[in-house]
Amino acid sequence: MGSSFGENITISIFGQSHSEAIGVVMDGLPAGEGVDLGQTAAFLARRAPGHRVGDTPRREADEARVLSGLVDGVTCGAPLCAVIGNTDTRSADYENLRFVPRPGHADFPLQAKFGGAQDIRGGGHSSGRLTAPLCFAGAVCLQFLARRGVTVRARILEIGGEREDFAAAIDRARTEGDSVGGMIECTAEGLPAGLGAPMFGGVENRLAAALFGIPAVRGVEFGEGFAAARLRGSENNDAYYIENGAVRTRTNHHGGVLGGMTTGMPLVLRVAVKPTPSVAKPQQSVDLREMRDTQLHIGGRHDACIVPRAVPVVEAVTACVLLDLLLH
Amino acid sequence: MGSSFGENITISIFGQSHSEAIGVVMDGLPAGEGVDLGQTAAFLARRAPGHRVGDTPRREADEARVLSGLVDGVTCGAPLCAVIGNTDTRSADYENLRFVPRPGHADFPLQAKFGGAQDIRGGGHSSGRLTAPLCFAGAVCLQFLARRGVTVRARILEIGGEREDFAAAIDRARTEGDSVGGMIECTAEGLPAGLGAPMFGGVENRLAAALFGIPAVRGVEFGEGFAAARLRGSENNDAYYIENGAVRTRTNHHGGVLGGMTTGMPLVLRVAVKPTPSVAKPQQSVDLREMRDTQLHIGGRHDACIVPRAVPVVEAVTACVLLDLLLH
Amino acid sequence: MGSSFGENITISIFGQSHSEAIGVVMDGLPAGEGVDLGQTAAFLARRAPGHRVGDTPRREADEARVLSGLVDGVTCGAPLCAVIGNTDTRSADYENLRFVPRPGHADFPLQAKFGGAQDIRGGGHSSGRLTAPLCFAGAVCLQFLARRGVTVRARILEIGGEREDFAAAIDRARTEGDSVGGMIECTAEGLPAGLGAPMFGGVENRLAAALFGIPAVRGVEFGEGFAAARLRGSENNDAYYIENGAVRTRTNHHGGVLGGMTTGMPLVLRVAVKPTPSVAKPQQSVDLREMRDTQLHIGGRHDACIVPRAVPVVEAVTACVLLDLLLH
Amino acid sequence: MGSSFGENITISIFGQSHSEAIGVVMDGLPAGEGVDLGQTAAFLARRAPGHRVGDTPRREADEARVLSGLVDGVTCGAPLCAVIGNTDTRSADYENLRFVPRPGHADFPLQAKFGGAQDIRGGGHSSGRLTAPLCFAGAVCLQFLARRGVTVRARILEIGGEREDFAAAIDRARTEGDSVGGMIECTAEGLPAGLGAPMFGGVENRLAAALFGIPAVRGVEFGEGFAAARLRGSENNDAYYIENGAVRTRTNHHGGVLGGMTTGMPLVLRVAVKPTPSVAKPQQSVDLREMRDTQLHIGGRHDACIVPRAVPVVEAVTACVLLDLLLH
Repeated sequence: MGSSFGENITISIFGQSHSEAIGVVMDGLPAGEGVDLGQTAAFLARRAPGHRVGDTPRREADEARVLSGLVDGVTCGAPLCAVIGNTDTRSADYENLRFVPRPGHADFPLQAKFGGAQDIRGGGHSSGRLTAPLCFAGAVCLQFLARRGVTVRARILEIGGEREDFAAAIDRARTEGDSVGGMIECTAEGLPAGLGAPMFGGVENRLAAALFGIPAVRGVEFGEGFAAARLRGSENNDAYYIENGAVRTRTNHHGGVLGGMTTGMPLVLRVAVKPTPSVAKPQQSVDLREMRDTQLHIGGRHDACIVPRAVPVVEAVTACVLLDLLLH
Repeated sequence: MGSSFGENITISIFGQSHSEAIGVVMDGLPAGEGVDLGQTAAFLARRAPGHRVGDTPRREADEARVLSGLVDGVTCGAPLCAVIGNTDTRSADYENLRFVPRPGHADFPLQAKFGGAQDIRGGGHSSGRLTAPLCFAGAVCLQFLARRGVTVRARILEIGGEREDFAAAIDRARTEGDSVGGMIECTAEGLPAGLGAPMFGGVENRLAAALFGIPAVRGVEFGEGFAAARLRGSENNDAYYIENGAVRTRTNHHGGVLGGMTTGMPLVLRVAVKPTPSVAKPQQSVDLREMRDTQLHIGGRHDACIVPRAVPVVEAVTACVLLDLLLH
Repeated sequence: MGSSFGENITISIFGQSHSEAIGVVMDGLPAGEGVDLGQTAAFLARRAPGHRVGDTPRREADEARVLSGLVDGVTCGAPLCAVIGNTDTRSADYENLRFVPRPGHADFPLQAKFGGAQDIRGGGHSSGRLTAPLCFAGAVCLQFLARRGVTVRARILEIGGEREDFAAAIDRARTEGDSVGGMIECTAEGLPAGLGAPMFGGVENRLAAALFGIPAVRGVEFGEGFAAARLRGSENNDAYYIENGAVRTRTNHHGGVLGGMTTGMPLVLRVAVKPTPSVAKPQQSVDLREMRDTQLHIGGRHDACIVPRAVPVVEAVTACVLLDLLLH
Repeated sequence: MGSSFGENITISIFGQSHSEAIGVVMDGLPAGEGVDLGQTAAFLARRAPGHRVGDTPRREADEARVLSGLVDGVTCGAPLCAVIGNTDTRSADYENLRFVPRPGHADFPLQAKFGGAQDIRGGGHSSGRLTAPLCFAGAVCLQFLARRGVTVRARILEIGGEREDFAAAIDRARTEGDSVGGMIECTAEGLPAGLGAPMFGGVENRLAAALFGIPAVRGVEFGEGFAAARLRGSENNDAYYIENGAVRTRTNHHGGVLGGMTTGMPLVLRVAVKPTPSVAKPQQSVDLREMRDTQLHIGGRHDACIVPRAVPVVEAVTACVLLDLLLH
């Protein structure tokens, strides 16, 4: 189905940017484990708008309310549903977007798919806002993983090609009425060897399938990823050795996964995030009613870069998939 | 499940490198459509070993025998099963591989997962040989797609960092007892706009999930992919215009897919293929029985580069997923 | 997954009897179709407690609030989520039930499965109350079916073995501190021939899989059902004939489905509903803490018969499955 | 998908009555367990045609050949594929069946679904012959279950309403050019308490979904089943008691499953098998080419009763589902 993923633990996301609420249903969580809603709130705050990179995370309006699945803060085996109200849903005039699609956004294919029935207000179901319930789910899974000795941590690798001063790169783009993308790396430590499967049920298959569900993700790679295409086999192979009675590799070009299965080394993946398509500069578009070319000016304030806010989302999705694999 | 993919059309692969046969079951194909087994054989020949890039394809031993699903060459609505015999299954002594895992191969995680029960002969179920039935399935899907006006075509983009003389790059590696990887680009034309879905059932999600099932694939990207992370929004966005009454974009940075859905522009994806892990050079490994370090020499003849043979596999997998999406 | 069903349209139920709310997520509904929430409310009222058979249906507290998926009452292609608040959740002392399982209820297997973590308040996730969101989903699907010319209607066939005066049978049981079950027949008209599939994706398979999700259902049969086991082939076969250019059968022993597929004749199925396990009479149970036999008195008011309230639930589930099959 | 079932263990059936072969792919079996092919052959012999009830089982032509998934008779974690050749595929003239559907068979809905493309030879994919690979799968699962202390055994309960002399009932029908159905009861012992789930992933849901995949099954019930609809709650409830430190019930009206989950008591289910639709008596049908009524005479030899042959099939399907549940 379109808006859910997972096999043992199914994560189903619902809501639109301007619907009454957005939320998530998590089915299949182990029973009898605590969920710390303070921690989920802190995690959600990491993706909330309004704080710069490096700022102290502050509580935002993204308050998740748990409707089911917990009894006194402990999972009870029934699906856990959490909802987040949509308070800021000003009735702006979005009607124009239905007929003049924004370049780089889902507007045009949504129109082609749903014939005008799609919710265009604020991006509808395709809005980045839907990553809030996804982060809630991820925050829950991170707690379950932590109990099992697994940590997941993502970080910005580069923004706009810049590997050090991310804020400057973002500022430059904003000043010019433009936007920048970037790359995020996510690492999971503590996974046992042998998770996953050969062929289509593998670690990469399942992670990639979920990670491409994050808006603006255009590429997913593991270990050396695309760089492996330029290495020799003797360079890309990781030599095994024994350390404290455990099998390890001296390097980690394989990023913790071989043949679809974990090796026990840290799992390393990277995603490419494209630049925000909403830019202040005027753009060429079309009027779908009159089927003629037209120019489009996108007003309002837009993030010149969503990469910082995407970091916890990548963590969240990775955590959901890894817990699912771990509980197989 | 581990060895199958697809929603409306399920492709299930079975077999090991040295089992009696390998094969595929395709469930959900539309009934009443012809399958040209000459074409599937020609397609299979493209991935067969023993011919260089540019050579005329020749019939190899990979002869697929259809056991069910066709009546007089036409699909009948029942699952189509095709098997390919494993004739060259010399009983070499693979026992050593169980305990001394080859770097870069699935040997170690397989041992961790299956505790020694896995079939290690020739790579077992993780062998590249399993791409033969996958190619059969893809060849069938390509015929169904062609009838619907959709073509899928993959090509080598680079090998060992070399973008022109692939053969030379491979020869250099082989001479040095080493191997090289590469990059493959796949393009699909003729898709209507609006296929796929937002979030997790999207075109990228489903293609990536399947493409990572091809051995040695380490990264998957769409449109500009990882390069998009270094573009400005104004550069990466594709301007819409009307041409002959159809909506098109002047550039195709988005690779034919926005927000998980097709736009009607050519779908463009790339996969990174790592260098063959089997290299002639001696490598460091471990002995899992004695839990000590050891050295490994991999004998036999091995492809110094599997990229050319992976090209039809990428086409095949892409075709299977696209037909599935198209028939939704 | 445990609490969802459906292939093209996925219905996911969440909530427990005493959680903050219960609800449903419907993913995959066609976009651009109206949902009349007055009709869904009227349908929900049919299963609400407090009205006798034959009474005028009245609005109950089961008010479903739509959080997402509709824009101005029309489906927008995004998952439709509806929640129903749990207002009457008195904090009675249910603790005893965790250790002294009620005969005929899920208490004991829930304890075995979840080890005490299950929500025991009011039956938790296994409560009949969860049929409320199921009815909401069914009411939506019935509207979609009606537009496609399909009607679904269930009725009581017998209660406590009584085929005419149901109320009397229920009264007798209630007076005696006991309960009765019954049989419900559901008929769907207007289905085209050829829906479903041979083997495991058939009409019966999918209906039965969903219908057994209704609490207290112990048997499902189609057409003559168990009675067919006592008929001769010549009696059970339905003769075909042509009427107004359409193929029909003179009798409908097959209940509109042959070999897993619809024939275009009315679909007829029956479910057996067991008597409410909560009876006033004292019962033998065990104390799971002390692992010794004990006696159990179930207090409170309980329906002496849930069959009348199960009628709309059977319609609802049937409608969900049929719409899913129809939209394949 | 139409021809497969199972979550952790997926059983996919392929083939038609007159295709080159029929077979099964089992994906997800635990690795490292022996499969005794002598036992599977003996099990397959139980459903083979040509032996009366009570006869010594004899080896039939239904010889399953394992193509993959076993190494020296032990599962290796890769999908197990077994094929059974179709040797007796005389090219009789089945063309008539395409246009004059046999009452009680799937002919007409198949024609409606596949528009003539379906394989009509010998019933095609809807043929009872497809229960042979199903029995192979079941025989494998029975061996896995036995190792885990679970036994599954089905038996005829009645044939043609006759509860004792089954052979006489069949003979009477055959003599009169007619056929009879019957009822089969299947019992599984040794299951732990707590398998399954509330709502849609329950034991009944999953067993029923699979059991209705057996040709001619028209009803499935658990415990008292339809009889429960006529019992009082106080009669149908099973009193708990402690025996040798284990929780048991004094009676087993619930058939070992409550609220979708096992209780540890023997699982008891019954299926209704309709009388063979192929009867010697002339029947009314229609000519779909000319859309007019016509008479149909079905020639050839047909089983006057398939119930005895269905017994191992019910065991097989039950075993597949139970192993799947047990391995969750």
